[in-house]
Amino acid sequence: MAEQLRIGVIGAGRIGKIHGENIARSIPQARLEGLADIKLSAEQDAWARRLGARLVSKDPGDLLSDPAIDAVVVCSSTDTHADLVIAAAEAGKQIFCEKPVDLSVPKVKAALAAAKKAGVKLQIGFNRRFDHNFRRIREYTLAGEIGAVQLVKISSRDPAPPPPAYVAVSGGIFLDMMIHDFDMARFQAGSEITEVYAAGAVLVDPEIGKAGDVDTAMVTLRFANGAIGVIDNSRKAVYGYDQRVEVFGSKGAALAENDLPNTVKLYSETAVRGEKPLYFFLERYKGAFVDEMAAFADAVLQDKPVAVSGEDGLEDMYAALAAGKSLKEKRPVSIDDVRI
Amino acid sequence: MAEQLRIGVIGAGRIGKIHGENIARSIPQARLEGLADIKLSAEQDAWARRLGARLVSKDPGDLLSDPAIDAVVVCSSTDTHADLVIAAAEAGKQIFCEKPVDLSVPKVKAALAAAKKAGVKLQIGFNRRFDHNFRRIREYTLAGEIGAVQLVKISSRDPAPPPPAYVAVSGGIFLDMMIHDFDMARFQAGSEITEVYAAGAVLVDPEIGKAGDVDTAMVTLRFANGAIGVIDNSRKAVYGYDQRVEVFGSKGAALAENDLPNTVKLYSETAVRGEKPLYFFLERYKGAFVDEMAAFADAVLQDKPVAVSGEDGLEDMYAALAAGKSLKEKRPVSIDDVRI
Amino acid sequence: MAEQLRIGVIGAGRIGKIHGENIARSIPQARLEGLADIKLSAEQDAWARRLGARLVSKDPGDLLSDPAIDAVVVCSSTDTHADLVIAAAEAGKQIFCEKPVDLSVPKVKAALAAAKKAGVKLQIGFNRRFDHNFRRIREYTLAGEIGAVQLVKISSRDPAPPPPAYVAVSGGIFLDMMIHDFDMARFQAGSEITEVYAAGAVLVDPEIGKAGDVDTAMVTLRFANGAIGVIDNSRKAVYGYDQRVEVFGSKGAALAENDLPNTVKLYSETAVRGEKPLYFFLERYKGAFVDEMAAFADAVLQDKPVAVSGEDGLEDMYAALAAGKSLKEKRPVSIDDVRI
Amino acid sequence: MAEQLRIGVIGAGRIGKIHGENIARSIPQARLEGLADIKLSAEQDAWARRLGARLVSKDPGDLLSDPAIDAVVVCSSTDTHADLVIAAAEAGKQIFCEKPVDLSVPKVKAALAAAKKAGVKLQIGFNRRFDHNFRRIREYTLAGEIGAVQLVKISSRDPAPPPPAYVAVSGGIFLDMMIHDFDMARFQAGSEITEVYAAGAVLVDPEIGKAGDVDTAMVTLRFANGAIGVIDNSRKAVYGYDQRVEVFGSKGAALAENDLPNTVKLYSETAVRGEKPLYFFLERYKGAFVDEMAAFADAVLQDKPVAVSGEDGLEDMYAALAAGKSLKEKRPVSIDDVRI
Repeated sequence: MAEQLRIGVIGAGRIGKIHGENIARSIPQARLEGLADIKLSAEQDAWARRLGARLVSKDPGDLLSDPAIDAVVVCSSTDTHADLVIAAAEAGKQIFCEKPVDLSVPKVKAALAAAKKAGVKLQIGFNRRFDHNFRRIREYTLAGEIGAVQLVKISSRDPAPPPPAYVAVSGGIFLDMMIHDFDMARFQAGSEITEVYAAGAVLVDPEIGKAGDVDTAMVTLRFANGAIGVIDNSRKAVYGYDQRVEVFGSKGAALAENDLPNTVKLYSETAVRGEKPLYFFLERYKGAFVDEMAAFADAVLQDKPVAVSGEDGLEDMYAALAAGKSLKEKRPVSIDDVRI
Repeated sequence: MAEQLRIGVIGAGRIGKIHGENIARSIPQARLEGLADIKLSAEQDAWARRLGARLVSKDPGDLLSDPAIDAVVVCSSTDTHADLVIAAAEAGKQIFCEKPVDLSVPKVKAALAAAKKAGVKLQIGFNRRFDHNFRRIREYTLAGEIGAVQLVKISSRDPAPPPPAYVAVSGGIFLDMMIHDFDMARFQAGSEITEVYAAGAVLVDPEIGKAGDVDTAMVTLRFANGAIGVIDNSRKAVYGYDQRVEVFGSKGAALAENDLPNTVKLYSETAVRGEKPLYFFLERYKGAFVDEMAAFADAVLQDKPVAVSGEDGLEDMYAALAAGKSLKEKRPVSIDDVRI
Repeated sequence: MAEQLRIGVIGAGRIGKIHGENIARSIPQARLEGLADIKLSAEQDAWARRLGARLVSKDPGDLLSDPAIDAVVVCSSTDTHADLVIAAAEAGKQIFCEKPVDLSVPKVKAALAAAKKAGVKLQIGFNRRFDHNFRRIREYTLAGEIGAVQLVKISSRDPAPPPPAYVAVSGGIFLDMMIHDFDMARFQAGSEITEVYAAGAVLVDPEIGKAGDVDTAMVTLRFANGAIGVIDNSRKAVYGYDQRVEVFGSKGAALAENDLPNTVKLYSETAVRGEKPLYFFLERYKGAFVDEMAAFADAVLQDKPVAVSGEDGLEDMYAALAAGKSLKEKRPVSIDDVRI
Repeated sequence: MAEQLRIGVIGAGRIGKIHGENIARSIPQARLEGLADIKLSAEQDAWARRLGARLVSKDPGDLLSDPAIDAVVVCSSTDTHADLVIAAAEAGKQIFCEKPVDLSVPKVKAALAAAKKAGVKLQIGFNRRFDHNFRRIREYTLAGEIGAVQLVKISSRDPAPPPPAYVAVSGGIFLDMMIHDFDMARFQAGSEITEVYAAGAVLVDPEIGKAGDVDTAMVTLRFANGAIGVIDNSRKAVYGYDQRVEVFGSKGAALAENDLPNTVKLYSETAVRGEKPLYFFLERYKGAFVDEMAAFADAVLQDKPVAVSGEDGLEDMYAALAAGKSLKEKRPVSIDDVRI
């Protein structure tokens, strides 16, 4: 293995560009060796070359067949993830794959099996585990400051709903949005989810309801270790991206408030005002995107387990599927009921 | 009606003494005219007389038959509440009754019917509606700052569990503890609860489990207006009494943090420290106890509806009963399923 | 001495009424035995009697000559304080005197001498030492959490300026307003002020300037123990009463923020808003007024030194006089330069 | 001018490396074209080349004579700043110079004159003006939210004192440390300092006193617009780097609290704990270092005035010199008294 992890990014959309920039600029132990995008534009080509990419192509296969590329970061459209993971695994590349691996459990399982068979690492892009706030809570728990975890509470609300057209193909709020929170819940509880109960409603945009989804949801979780959790999601918080986590245990509790753009308080004749939370995930999780990629590079270079495994992604997905089933059937659903 | 409401307090235990002190010292429009306690001690007698009580007796009937007493505050043991409310109503007294009116729905209904028939006011002691923080949230909602309410989140955790012996006769966590939160939820949502789903566990004290109760609970609520809610209770938060409310809506959100004994932050070599929340309900809701009694006096003196009616108490009770049933049957339960 | 301290209040203006109410309602170890006000109104008479006062008079001498009155609280106009303290001392009464004892140092000294000669206690009404926030800082210092005190910073700003007519007779911003902060500074530093440097300006109301005073001031302090302090005053903070203290030392720092009416934060499309600080000293120091009087009663009943002595009041006054001189002469002024 | 500003960094010490990294990685409109360090190590050489530097040399003159270098960033030792600025100006380079330009006013003036004569831009490295918190306060003031500025308060405390050897050559606390705060004060007041009064003490390390300096200082400022200010400095705050600013005016006030590494609060049996402030200036002003360099690049590329001019640096220096004189002479000192 080279001293620096030579990474090829597949897909130069919004998230692909973030990973590309981070790899090239902020992660000394990695470098942006290549980029592939099936609709590669001149602008994307120039962008990648400016960041030092040697191999820029419309064909992801070019990255996979290049022996000087150690790892790929899969940021293409969701429906291509599983096939690319399988192909990359077969090519012996280390793999970082954006969430979700797929919306179909069998395809996810096939991808995981391929990585396992090839003996390559597969890290899933649940970036929030690397967030400075949420990681700090977990550290407190691991240090024994919280005691036995009893309650996990997560608020996760977007500043604005996606277009209904997106909603229709997204897999629904549980697979598209709350899946991050299921992963966070498992991370913070240090235990697997065993059962969920989902309450949901269309309170933000009737079009989302017409697309067969809900835009507001409250999901109760039970964990294998006895703890209880709750996640609330809304597609629209007018005050911005709301990302809070609370862990309560036998010895204490830890709460992470939102990140703000600055600490200034304005005292006026009518109120004391502070800034709204950082607008959305690109601003809010800026550092987490860097840290997850650095962790991936370290896991490969030092041959350590990845921080968020394919199995994590699969468990998160089961939770989301169970939540969907619970909402539909108006009853609590065991994770085992959806496990296949 | 006299210029000051002449109140007789029934029961001189912890809460009776608080109401007595408040009436005598902090509510100019009321005065402590009498006290009755079936186990009246010399100390209690002296206390009441020091506060200006004219009539001190072991027999609550003495207060009810005294024409110079306008209203009674029922603070005796729970099993006597309903009978005292009925007797007071028949005696034409205005009534403030501590929660719960009774643990049996028919007895509650009988008490409510008696008050209604007698045309007297009946206010239930859900003091938290008068809390400076929670009232402020409701004011924001009523002023349109929150928009349509979509989510209501309540954390309510005690600093230490009650003795298992108490738990056994308390009616269980939902009727004994979370009933305050059901009332708060209805108050903040401005809507009735239609369905609940309860998850519960014994995580604090196995003795509570042996007494047939849980000590940790997470209850999802659905409201008639479409909003969704969640309440979490724990019998033991080592850091003290944890009382927080959050209301989220189409135009904004309001959050009430815990009250602290002072605003001081200590910056040291290891951390920045602040005080823990106020220890328990007597400290935390000190002002709310005064304000609920002042509101009762005003409601009587100005012939206005009471702020927390007997019907409120009954609805809160239905929510608690439904939560108990949900926990037992492991399914969401409609309020109508427990309404009798 | 009686079990309860029998107190006569002299002067039934705003502050006299607060002390009277507190003595009657909130300090079990004291009672309001009498009231005297040279312009006693029927309303004041009724108020005092309602609070249980036995002796209500237009003549303060009636309180002083009554053997069943143990102590007097001097709340009359400032120009009468010194003479009343002297008369009360000669009558053997324990004395609580509102600040300032007088605007003339010789008169203050005469009053202190009279109390000393009579062997009665004399507590001055610097209520802020009893404030829950500022007392907590002092406790941290005394507990060694701050280490050696190096810096003391005090912000003290009023919500609105007094009428210029008041300013003209007030003794000026240093004797009228900042004197509280000089006392707080000495209390927090645990050391005497040795030198001051005052910068001042007329930035709020030109009429205050015409009255020969400033309305904005920043005063640097040097303490005998080597610490340095600063106090800023403004006669007008549009956001309300601003009362903050910071103590910084070799082992840490403690900061007291303003008190707010509630903890609610409102998240809206434009900002996150909280309440402004409590409006003015009556609301802000409500508890401190009770606690200073309770401490006075305890000091007398248990024959302990008072928490704020006449000598404290005199030292605070020297600091104020030195600040005035510094402002006028545009140079730092030693306290010894104004000591007489 | 090229599309990207081609920058040569002079001096590859701590601050030079930060600027070099930022230019190469975080400022798209600039690039690291060259590096010169008179003691260039192999490691520094490799570092610069890895960041894309074309010209790496031990001789700053190589950068100055290279026509493909548009601008230099002077980060060498303070005693070389003025000569390098003059040489760079004569070579027609745009100049960013770390503070201070020099400890001697005539040398600073000569450097400013050279830049002016050559018609090149000269920006001084007062990075804090670009801080997200302090910039926000200034924005509030400029937006009229504060009204007329009346008070400016700055706390600026280091986590640990420098070695006494450094202190001896640093120019003293006012020129070395508080000069940042004089610049901030002028920036926030929007007005020039006209007079200062300095109180200082040796409370942290007696060796600093032996080196002829103080380690704790409180300086009162008067501004041309009538506002009053105060700055406190300590060489040692055990809880970390303390950087706060408050601006108070006729319409409101704005306060910037310290930046923290995360928002987590830990509730335990003994206290509620949060993190200490970010440790020191590299962490605290990370973003400000990027933003000041981006602003420099923009000022050059778009031919706009620089945000912090050489004249700003000179005025800041006069304030520092006046503070030193005030401390020595124990009197307020007018800026005009030290202007030469």
